[in-house]
Amino acid sequence: MTSKPKNHAAQEALSKERLRLWLKLLKASGLIEQEVRRRLRSEFGWTLPRFDVMSALSRESQGMKMSEISEKLRVSNGNVTGIVDKLVEEGLVLRVAVPGDRRAQLVRLTPKGHEVFRDHAKCHEQWIDELLSGLDADDISGMIRRLDDLNRKLDAED
Amino acid sequence: MTSKPKNHAAQEALSKERLRLWLKLLKASGLIEQEVRRRLRSEFGWTLPRFDVMSALSRESQGMKMSEISEKLRVSNGNVTGIVDKLVEEGLVLRVAVPGDRRAQLVRLTPKGHEVFRDHAKCHEQWIDELLSGLDADDISGMIRRLDDLNRKLDAED
Repeated sequence: MTSKPKNHAAQEALSKERLRLWLKLLKASGLIEQEVRRRLRSEFGWTLPRFDVMSALSRESQGMKMSEISEKLRVSNGNVTGIVDKLVEEGLVLRVAVPGDRRAQLVRLTPKGHEVFRDHAKCHEQWIDELLSGLDADDISGMIRRLDDLNRKLDAED
Repeated sequence: MTSKPKNHAAQEALSKERLRLWLKLLKASGLIEQEVRRRLRSEFGWTLPRFDVMSALSRESQGMKMSEISEKLRVSNGNVTGIVDKLVEEGLVLRVAVPGDRRAQLVRLTPKGHEVFRDHAKCHEQWIDELLSGLDADDISGMIRRLDDLNRKLDAED
């Protein structure tokens, strides 16, 4: 996908455009994230990290170790512990022992946790659908293709 | 830009694609931001909020009020105060009185501040150029066009 600019001026111009793109990308993701945080708070009294923990757990029916959650979400162990403690109190999550490893625990959604998350995730999808409604199917597939290229490259460097 | 899907299934599919797009957008901006933070820290001992404050000030030769900085960067007044105090200590920024308003102060880059920021901003641009090098000129203009549409709509709702 990378083109080889013919000269220094073209390379300079391309570099400026990449910077412009980055600032616009940052602006869009910041505005959307801010609005999602606001709605999670006002509709459900939830924080975004709580939603992200529930989302990660909803995809792992076997459960996850605390360290796996914090690694996946790039959040500190302390923060994950605080979030999970509250979720356990509310009956949305439970801690289960790992057979053969007395000190390890898995964290898993309860049936109520699955139900509540399904409901919240549905609202979250509707908010995103509304916030991104300025983009039609062609726009979306065009952006997904380019973001896939970009993320593949960034992942390889990470 | 918005298309009207013919039926409910098409609308559902489009909603799922918008959610996929959002998750990929979030991933890309998270990976790039993380790498920029890491390099600012290791190359210059700078935080990202410090870079952002210097960047905002570099564009306002008259200077900015503290409240303007925190509003522009969506950062708390307390955080901006801490950052500006350090920048003043290092001779990169100075506080000047506002004529006719004894309690107000403007914050402005010093000549040394301009020089240091120019240098750091140049490196920052090179990092972004490298991190986004998987995208060529067509990719970039295609994404900028769509992000402009998106940001215009998000700004209007904000």
